[in-house]
Amino acid sequence: MTDTVTLTLSEANDLCLQILLRTGLSAGQAEAVSEVIVTAQRDECHSHGLYRLIGCVHSINTGGVNKVANPKVIDLSPAIVKVDADFGFSSYAYKKVISLAVAKAREQGLAALAINNCYHFSALWPEIEPLAEDGLAALALTPSHSWVAPAGGTKPLFGTNPIAFAWPRADGHPFVFDFATSATARGEIELHGRAAKKIKPGLAIDQDGQPTIDPSEALKGAMLTFGGHKGSALSAMVELLAGPLIGDMLSLESKAFDQGRGASPCHGELILIFDPAVFLGDTLAANLSRAEMLFDNILGQGARLPSQRRYSARQNSLANGLTISTNLYDDLLALLDTAPTALCMTLRG
Amino acid sequence: MTDTVTLTLSEANDLCLQILLRTGLSAGQAEAVSEVIVTAQRDECHSHGLYRLIGCVHSINTGGVNKVANPKVIDLSPAIVKVDADFGFSSYAYKKVISLAVAKAREQGLAALAINNCYHFSALWPEIEPLAEDGLAALALTPSHSWVAPAGGTKPLFGTNPIAFAWPRADGHPFVFDFATSATARGEIELHGRAAKKIKPGLAIDQDGQPTIDPSEALKGAMLTFGGHKGSALSAMVELLAGPLIGDMLSLESKAFDQGRGASPCHGELILIFDPAVFLGDTLAANLSRAEMLFDNILGQGARLPSQRRYSARQNSLANGLTISTNLYDDLLALLDTAPTALCMTLRG
Repeated sequence: MTDTVTLTLSEANDLCLQILLRTGLSAGQAEAVSEVIVTAQRDECHSHGLYRLIGCVHSINTGGVNKVANPKVIDLSPAIVKVDADFGFSSYAYKKVISLAVAKAREQGLAALAINNCYHFSALWPEIEPLAEDGLAALALTPSHSWVAPAGGTKPLFGTNPIAFAWPRADGHPFVFDFATSATARGEIELHGRAAKKIKPGLAIDQDGQPTIDPSEALKGAMLTFGGHKGSALSAMVELLAGPLIGDMLSLESKAFDQGRGASPCHGELILIFDPAVFLGDTLAANLSRAEMLFDNILGQGARLPSQRRYSARQNSLANGLTISTNLYDDLLALLDTAPTALCMTLRG
Repeated sequence: MTDTVTLTLSEANDLCLQILLRTGLSAGQAEAVSEVIVTAQRDECHSHGLYRLIGCVHSINTGGVNKVANPKVIDLSPAIVKVDADFGFSSYAYKKVISLAVAKAREQGLAALAINNCYHFSALWPEIEPLAEDGLAALALTPSHSWVAPAGGTKPLFGTNPIAFAWPRADGHPFVFDFATSATARGEIELHGRAAKKIKPGLAIDQDGQPTIDPSEALKGAMLTFGGHKGSALSAMVELLAGPLIGDMLSLESKAFDQGRGASPCHGELILIFDPAVFLGDTLAANLSRAEMLFDNILGQGARLPSQRRYSARQNSLANGLTISTNLYDDLLALLDTAPTALCMTLRG
């Protein structure tokens, strides 16, 4: 027996489904959540992969998530569609609304999709990469819990507030980035704490607003945004566009709403979808080539495109399956109480 | 005689107009350009204020700018309007199209305004702040000339690629930010060079792609983006959305198009306009209050809102006029060949 376990994508999906269904989550939600978890694990985004199941189950068991959520689509205008996730997971609401949002973008050239009252635990790229694979561009924003101080401030106010963007490419994978506007992930600080390691300077402040490299002081204080006052301004923009603009909570409110349960943040998400075919008409091909010129000039000077590592990992996972630590695998099996026989085909490292 | 000259806003506007009209620029363009220059000077954004007139005149005299540009509005879809600036200044095209763009946003909740083939020299905030004063939110993006290397790269590719955002506030000035995605302004490096000062580490690389603090090496090499790979990703997004998406040039193409004239960059600009009233309906007031909660929590912990310095400067300018250096004033008068008698009322120091 080794320290790793390898699962096929299908086995990983079955495991997710069984774990989630056992909590009482509806089949629709369990399927949507399993899909994004396996997608993240496939691309070796470990923090949003199978590991995240533990947090999902916690969110469900602590009572915040509506296990039988029935998302309601609201067709607000020819350019805007909202979906009330009914306090279920965002991924399920997204699946119910995305085809209408895409239809609006194809008709108007530009559409906004707002997801409200959703528990959000996934990365943003799984939501926008498929849009770019269909020839669209997209920008996604969401708040989280108030863990991050504004530039010049001393107290947590902003969430980690990620921004993700996708652009279509005729050949190969879309151009996609997805990053937190916080200087680091909260999980990274926690991991440093567990390993009794200091964090890098510039990532966090303590409760008195002083810079700190001590993980426990950082967790009691606040994280900082990336890029100083510019990153802080962007983080405020995420709060406003994916909060008040769509009638949903700020990170500060979302944290209070959680009542210390430590569940996934409940709030809103905004996705803007652009159809280059409408913007460009006859000049579409020429302008997609122009975008390729940009990518060629990035790669040609030895720099990387944002999702290259992820796409390489995907290729590996599709060929060789998903490899996770035995510890994580055991933690996942524990969520099932007993190991399901259906998973005995699993190849152990 | 002191080292400064104080002008009323009206005098400054007249001076701009006379200087621009003397170049042969059409009255419409001269008025639009004067307005944004005086607006910037009023807010003590010196690099985009009266100083910028020198660059504008250079751009006109070196032959790139269409002095008699006749912008053409293209009503592309219910959510998109484009304006072909006819190779004149962006500010004039903006004035011709903005009412239609706003009408679309008020109708649909969301609209895109693309300005094409424009010489762009102003900051972005003068274009979006008035929208927020009318209750709208807006996001503006534009490329520039390829002076900035992508993260991990060694060669100039991106422009300084500013991002600006505005959000309406019922009481007081809108929440507005406007920043370059480059780590610093090119003008800052030039100023350090003239003063024989080193620049800060992390702002630029030399021609071999090595970090440099030498301004002349930096100008021959490339600037860096703010915020490492995250800022670099955002800069790429600006290139894509305000370039290929709207059928206009990348910063790399814009620089080549300039043919070494050193004129203002000619390219495109994208402005997204959101009407919170459409997104929110009956819940508009409650959600604008929610946004105020964010601002209160920024200010309440001693941090600042992005445009506070600018608004304070404005208050001062409106009360006391615009104060510029005598050197700059003399440079501006030189653009007129002879000092116009109409300006003799100018208060010297």
